Amino acid sequence: MSNRYAVVLAAGKGTRMKSKLYKVLHPVCGKPMVEHVVDQLTDLNLSEIITIIGFGSDLVKEQLGSRTKYVLQEEQLGTGHAVQMAEPYLKDKKGTTIVVCGDTPLLTGETLKELMDFHENEQAQVSVLTSKLDDPSGYGRVIRNDDNEVEKIVEHKDANNDELKVNEINTGVYCFDNELLFDALDLVSNDNSQGEYYLPDVLSIAKERSQKVVAYTTPNFEETLGVNDRVALSKAEKIMQQRINEHHMRQGVSIIDVDNTYIGPDVIIGSDVIIEPGCKISGKTTIKDESTIGPNSEIMDSYIGESTVIKQSVVTESKVGQSVNIGPFAHIRPASDVGDHVKIGNFVEVKKSQIDSNSKVSHLSYIGDAEVGKDANIGCGTITVNYDGKNKYKTIIEDEAFIGCNSNLVAPVTVKKGAYVAAGSTITKDVPEKALSIARSRQENKEGYVERLNKRK
Amino acid sequence: MSNRYAVVLAAGKGTRMKSKLYKVLHPVCGKPMVEHVVDQLTDLNLSEIITIIGFGSDLVKEQLGSRTKYVLQEEQLGTGHAVQMAEPYLKDKKGTTIVVCGDTPLLTGETLKELMDFHENEQAQVSVLTSKLDDPSGYGRVIRNDDNEVEKIVEHKDANNDELKVNEINTGVYCFDNELLFDALDLVSNDNSQGEYYLPDVLSIAKERSQKVVAYTTPNFEETLGVNDRVALSKAEKIMQQRINEHHMRQGVSIIDVDNTYIGPDVIIGSDVIIEPGCKISGKTTIKDESTIGPNSEIMDSYIGESTVIKQSVVTESKVGQSVNIGPFAHIRPASDVGDHVKIGNFVEVKKSQIDSNSKVSHLSYIGDAEVGKDANIGCGTITVNYDGKNKYKTIIEDEAFIGCNSNLVAPVTVKKGAYVAAGSTITKDVPEKALSIARSRQENKEGYVERLNKRK
Amino acid sequence: MSNRYAVVLAAGKGTRMKSKLYKVLHPVCGKPMVEHVVDQLTDLNLSEIITIIGFGSDLVKEQLGSRTKYVLQEEQLGTGHAVQMAEPYLKDKKGTTIVVCGDTPLLTGETLKELMDFHENEQAQVSVLTSKLDDPSGYGRVIRNDDNEVEKIVEHKDANNDELKVNEINTGVYCFDNELLFDALDLVSNDNSQGEYYLPDVLSIAKERSQKVVAYTTPNFEETLGVNDRVALSKAEKIMQQRINEHHMRQGVSIIDVDNTYIGPDVIIGSDVIIEPGCKISGKTTIKDESTIGPNSEIMDSYIGESTVIKQSVVTESKVGQSVNIGPFAHIRPASDVGDHVKIGNFVEVKKSQIDSNSKVSHLSYIGDAEVGKDANIGCGTITVNYDGKNKYKTIIEDEAFIGCNSNLVAPVTVKKGAYVAAGSTITKDVPEKALSIARSRQENKEGYVERLNKRK
Repeated sequence: MSNRYAVVLAAGKGTRMKSKLYKVLHPVCGKPMVEHVVDQLTDLNLSEIITIIGFGSDLVKEQLGSRTKYVLQEEQLGTGHAVQMAEPYLKDKKGTTIVVCGDTPLLTGETLKELMDFHENEQAQVSVLTSKLDDPSGYGRVIRNDDNEVEKIVEHKDANNDELKVNEINTGVYCFDNELLFDALDLVSNDNSQGEYYLPDVLSIAKERSQKVVAYTTPNFEETLGVNDRVALSKAEKIMQQRINEHHMRQGVSIIDVDNTYIGPDVIIGSDVIIEPGCKISGKTTIKDESTIGPNSEIMDSYIGESTVIKQSVVTESKVGQSVNIGPFAHIRPASDVGDHVKIGNFVEVKKSQIDSNSKVSHLSYIGDAEVGKDANIGCGTITVNYDGKNKYKTIIEDEAFIGCNSNLVAPVTVKKGAYVAAGSTITKDVPEKALSIARSRQENKEGYVERLNKRK
Repeated sequence: MSNRYAVVLAAGKGTRMKSKLYKVLHPVCGKPMVEHVVDQLTDLNLSEIITIIGFGSDLVKEQLGSRTKYVLQEEQLGTGHAVQMAEPYLKDKKGTTIVVCGDTPLLTGETLKELMDFHENEQAQVSVLTSKLDDPSGYGRVIRNDDNEVEKIVEHKDANNDELKVNEINTGVYCFDNELLFDALDLVSNDNSQGEYYLPDVLSIAKERSQKVVAYTTPNFEETLGVNDRVALSKAEKIMQQRINEHHMRQGVSIIDVDNTYIGPDVIIGSDVIIEPGCKISGKTTIKDESTIGPNSEIMDSYIGESTVIKQSVVTESKVGQSVNIGPFAHIRPASDVGDHVKIGNFVEVKKSQIDSNSKVSHLSYIGDAEVGKDANIGCGTITVNYDGKNKYKTIIEDEAFIGCNSNLVAPVTVKKGAYVAAGSTITKDVPEKALSIARSRQENKEGYVERLNKRK
Repeated sequence: MSNRYAVVLAAGKGTRMKSKLYKVLHPVCGKPMVEHVVDQLTDLNLSEIITIIGFGSDLVKEQLGSRTKYVLQEEQLGTGHAVQMAEPYLKDKKGTTIVVCGDTPLLTGETLKELMDFHENEQAQVSVLTSKLDDPSGYGRVIRNDDNEVEKIVEHKDANNDELKVNEINTGVYCFDNELLFDALDLVSNDNSQGEYYLPDVLSIAKERSQKVVAYTTPNFEETLGVNDRVALSKAEKIMQQRINEHHMRQGVSIIDVDNTYIGPDVIIGSDVIIEPGCKISGKTTIKDESTIGPNSEIMDSYIGESTVIKQSVVTESKVGQSVNIGPFAHIRPASDVGDHVKIGNFVEVKKSQIDSNSKVSHLSYIGDAEVGKDANIGCGTITVNYDGKNKYKTIIEDEAFIGCNSNLVAPVTVKKGAYVAAGSTITKDVPEKALSIARSRQENKEGYVERLNKRK
């Protein structure tokens, strides 16, 4: 295989997005468009990926990191000019160069590889990725000659009647012999109404030189969608969402409604997991076999063990064990570690805490900066008072402790193994093992009070 | 421009809706169908809008107010009869009258105006709004003559083979020379199988008099959908939802899933706002630039400032400042005013309260009938005790106050600037500036209690 | 009418589901596929239903119960072999036998009955259920002879050019003369590439014997979808979801978004109910007239009275009265009984409790194992302390009682009629009628404390 290079065009401003955010950084399924493109190219093990950056260049570099080299295109003078920016890295190198736009997030590595393989097998100088449409209107038509090579590409507005009937269209993805590409780019002029240097002019130059220009037709037209405004962005989102969901279903995940399930591209899901409608699962999340997520749950950057159920809840940057029951309406905040067989019930917040196996926090509690042991029972309304207005402190609740309802555990404090805190207590000192700790007033009943009160009012 | 009038037919019962609610009052995207129609007509600055009411007339009048005049059609004797009811307002007036049904909520003012402009430019007596369908079956066909004028309209069941091939159909929206209209209506008979007076008979009468009857073809057939049952109602909802969402996307709003986002027709959204799936945003709501709403949030009649994030929460009739963080699972009830940079965390309810900038109510609290100053910290589980069973009272928490967890603030009460309430306190008297207020019992640890308890049980 | 029998083929493993769960037990709209099939057959009052089971046979029997007889097919030797397993029950019986696959959950009783009626009216020996498709590719074609009977069925791959043009396809549902069926099955061989006994070979045998083989064409091709993987499963879910939703809309239910509303097949909904988006309503749930559910609510196996509103909440196995207001973010757990005109507000959990009419539990409370009378007011943050770590006890709150905020009611305990519990009290003893009960410490204000604290830190 010859050397292979990619040039990613990511310098445009994207005015029609009407956004402060640079176009190619707009996310699709949670990942910036240009990162989808570079991810796919990275999987192909190319010799070099060059990203042409312009608007928002620092943010693009920060996002993509060192997988690609960068060239700054200071003025936006057209696609030909943009590719020419890669000269310092690619000029005079032998091999194949694929040129891809940073706003085509749906292109797959498979299709890009098929184009490059075809290009090399055909020993072509230029190869165009094309597709066939029932209704090609609006698109540039690819006109083939008797040898089935590409004669020319005609824009819709310039096409004659015969050409308009051609249903093979140009997707805007090209493969070039690298040396030809940079030779020809030197000859491309900006003598046109827009005053821009156009990349497709390289094809005409190759044709003039009697070089071989061919077309590879992909059945996956959908992949080539370019995103220029938010309507197209939402279409791309939907297509990728379906692609991701179908992938998981084929692997043995039950997705009750594929149109109402939002799974990020890097999420890993085990078999016999059931995803109820209205869930968003994003980032580096793993969900193990036989768990049930949703309805209406959001899981970000978390690990969820086997046979766990998470209903109407939010889990962020945390680890949840197996056979755990979370929700409805629970919130697991970052840096939490929830052990096996734990129950986190409704209106419970867990933050930066470890809760060991078989413990229960069933209702209306806040567990923050805490370590909870095994088999502990945290009563309804329990609050770990972790903040004094200046600093945060830790609460330790040891194995088998029982915390009565509506208790405050004022950190730093430890409730030792098997200890019992009476309901309504504010605990400020450690509770010894198997002790009962109580901090509340005696009840006093004032007979007839209500009638007196009613008279007063 | 001549005088222009509109007659809105809104008297029918709508039996197929199977509803106690009068048909034209069924909402589409939160607004009654007939109000959509009258809103569009109002934008056209007509001389007069006459709404023909029948069933539910009082409710329709209450809903639409004084923008339109009303005539009661006491018996439902057909569309011709209904229009005739407008005689007291329109008879003998010169000008153009458009007749629209109150159950066509998707019609836009643009299309209605195009029809009236066409009608007047053509100097026609009658103009029909038509559309062309790939499959016209079921619809009345519009048969044109050699002059491209309308020869007649044939119902599907009455059409011959040639007529059935015509794909131009009658949408049921008409424009008339006003004088002709009322002249002709006097001649319409109810000599038909239903015993009704039909408005389209005016066309035949005009043709008999050799008057000019023309057709204006709209490409927007979708707009003309008439809603007769809840299946059609849900279709109208979906089409309007898409129309609203696409409008916002083109203005620079990112809507992650257009099929799962419900935005009312009067909502205003700034650029670079992100709407996650499962949100309902309704009424007179404004959302400023760069905020993020959702997933699964509901915002009604509220103002949301810039760069604010509202996740899995409900906000009603309130004002929220900029860079505010709300949710997940928070509830902002009516008449609340949340300042800039405030945090309202999970399981927090705010009702009829003002919370000034930089304050935090992070967890499991109820703030009702309260004024909270700047830089205050309201600890987890804090409750403003605003109700004594008879009356509601106010709680004032001044700047920089720190309220410990699980505290009750029994209103009327003030916690003054910089004061500190200890966790677990029930505060019934004012707390002076920078004082600590505490109202709780000392903790007592009873050693060995749990073992004794276990023996007892 | 002759005797009618059904054979349900439910023995296959369903490898492509990639599931530990046996294929026909995968649910569609909450009900296992095979149960949908048997439900439809049960409605037809057949003489006998025989289900052929194999993998997961015990679970299938448990699911379907005694409505059907079962035969175990120990080895999976093909559809012909599977039907043959029914011999002990059906051999030599006169009548009509319909053979249906357990993985076709969308088939309706109407269609199955039409096939059987057609079969008997035609006095046929074999009848095939067919459908006509615009694009029949991939499907077996049904070739009719000059008498309009079935000549043969040709698989797509075996079809010649003329046959490929036929757009009538085999849905895989058959009706047989019962005696012929079992006679012919004895003659079916497994002399084919898969080494299986195929049911369709019965058709060829019937043809060889010059018996009458006919085809009944259903317009409802959709119904015949067979589910072999999770992608098809999600399609079946969507089709059934639409079917259920459309049924309810035609009965007078407003479903705001049919694509985002999940209603189980056995749910009953009254007229003028509004279902907002994102709701899941399942099991044996009944919702009475004019209630509003959602957005984003989940109701399971519950009864909801008239004019009740349930927003962003979860209700399970409970009874809710009329004009009740629940949510947002409330959780009604099993065995609860919520009376008329009750309010259950945000962040409230009710478990195994009765709350009588006009009572209010407005915020942040846990009511478990309790009986609450009429006109009671349960203040914000109230907790029924029903569990001491060993046993659960009951709380009784009588009519007109007023429970102050953040109170604990330590069960077993009774707050008698009209009694008043002060905010922040932990109540351990019964409160007499109209008494005030208080259990809290006096407030102490420590002046200047905060400045001293700040110096210390």
